[in-house]
Amino acid sequence: MTILPAGQPFREDQNLLPSRQARLACRAGMATSTAGVANGFVQGNLAILPEKLASSFHRFCQLNPKPCPIIGMSDVGDPRIPSLGIDLDVRTDLPRYRVWRNGEVVEEPTDIMAHWRDDLVTFVLGCSFSFEEALMAEGLPIRHIERKVRVPMYRTNIACNPSGPFAGPMVVSMRPFKPAQAIRAVQITSRFPSVHGAPVHLGHPHSIGIADIAKPDYGDAVPVEADEIPVFWACGVTPQAVVAAAKLPFAMTHAPGLMLVTDLRNKDLAVL
Amino acid sequence: MTILPAGQPFREDQNLLPSRQARLACRAGMATSTAGVANGFVQGNLAILPEKLASSFHRFCQLNPKPCPIIGMSDVGDPRIPSLGIDLDVRTDLPRYRVWRNGEVVEEPTDIMAHWRDDLVTFVLGCSFSFEEALMAEGLPIRHIERKVRVPMYRTNIACNPSGPFAGPMVVSMRPFKPAQAIRAVQITSRFPSVHGAPVHLGHPHSIGIADIAKPDYGDAVPVEADEIPVFWACGVTPQAVVAAAKLPFAMTHAPGLMLVTDLRNKDLAVL
Repeated sequence: MTILPAGQPFREDQNLLPSRQARLACRAGMATSTAGVANGFVQGNLAILPEKLASSFHRFCQLNPKPCPIIGMSDVGDPRIPSLGIDLDVRTDLPRYRVWRNGEVVEEPTDIMAHWRDDLVTFVLGCSFSFEEALMAEGLPIRHIERKVRVPMYRTNIACNPSGPFAGPMVVSMRPFKPAQAIRAVQITSRFPSVHGAPVHLGHPHSIGIADIAKPDYGDAVPVEADEIPVFWACGVTPQAVVAAAKLPFAMTHAPGLMLVTDLRNKDLAVL
Repeated sequence: MTILPAGQPFREDQNLLPSRQARLACRAGMATSTAGVANGFVQGNLAILPEKLASSFHRFCQLNPKPCPIIGMSDVGDPRIPSLGIDLDVRTDLPRYRVWRNGEVVEEPTDIMAHWRDDLVTFVLGCSFSFEEALMAEGLPIRHIERKVRVPMYRTNIACNPSGPFAGPMVVSMRPFKPAQAIRAVQITSRFPSVHGAPVHLGHPHSIGIADIAKPDYGDAVPVEADEIPVFWACGVTPQAVVAAAKLPFAMTHAPGLMLVTDLRNKDLAVL
């Protein structure tokens, strides 16, 4: 196991997977967005909870697979998830974390070694980066990527199925497409149920409680042209919003856009 | 081969497939719509052309697979298509035909024995009845079926790829759905490329040259509610419109809604 000293500049090793190189870079201090990092590899949302809440949260994910698709999970107290990466350590291998206390972010450290406890369980949930790669590979333009802004996200009136303290509305991300592209996008993302899958809505934002498409609740607004349709996918911000709303005494997540880079390949998530 | 005398009332024979029973009923004089007849079996659009035009038309279908998906084709001069049905005779086994001369319907007979020639080639093209069955099996409501009217169809500004004398705009059929149903309908019909497959458009009728959704060019209008999206599929009326526009000296087709019932099963058309 190569442990790079913190703060050292990261040097690429051609013998390592790009995903592992990215994790080692994080371990060495990289603290920037993982958008575009290790293209082709699956990135994940992180949620770390004490064991006594983990089973409720696990059930919440089970009941809400579109916003909360689990792609990996640790044993209690174990910072490793071997199914997602050789040598992966969830305490150090993300660029930046959020530490939550009573529903508030109290710290955004670049590692969580100081917060680690032997009762913690880690969940890794699929992320839209994977299906965006599939959409772009098919030639579909992604507006927020073209504009180099964050994807617009909205709280909806679609209630998640509750479990214990975990409850709240589904958050969705929006990408505008011309109608024929929207149909193609439904087909492509249907192949990837473990990274949010098919859209949950298209065309009528008001129907799902979005009052103004130009005012997202998270991320940045992008224009929807007159000949386009706004297409909405369940979003990995949902579990983070739910964790916040539950006002848990203690939880940890990734910082938005600064994800866990795994050794899984996006193409291997396709179910057909 | 059982030949029923024309005009005799049809009696069901439990030893025959429902599809074959339907063809024998047509042969015996049944001349009503095949909607709802022999549920589960594939129905097809019919186009019969002289051999010298058949290769151009065949290429037209090849170039425009969404409106013109070929599910069967005869040898020159042969009224049988064994791949579509035991004992199938395209001259007698549809309820009603159209005989076209110079782009005009000159006759609508219940058989075409008197018009048959040994240079004729028959094409059978997939029909939306098959995918509508799949949609209803998944619980999606079909507005025009609920209202017992014909599906609304529209000429679009989407040009078909031309071949010889065959050219013209794509005709589409429209079914309104709530957004989540529209997404499901894209998924379901994508499994059935041989019966028009996924929609070609949704949401913006004007974008494809439809001035007024309440005024279809063929079929009957149905309402689209404020929380619904109009979803458009390539339509088997396209080849009939193209055959008419080509002003061929001679051609024959089925009469709209009075289709060829084949021994293929709708479920067997699913590609996944």
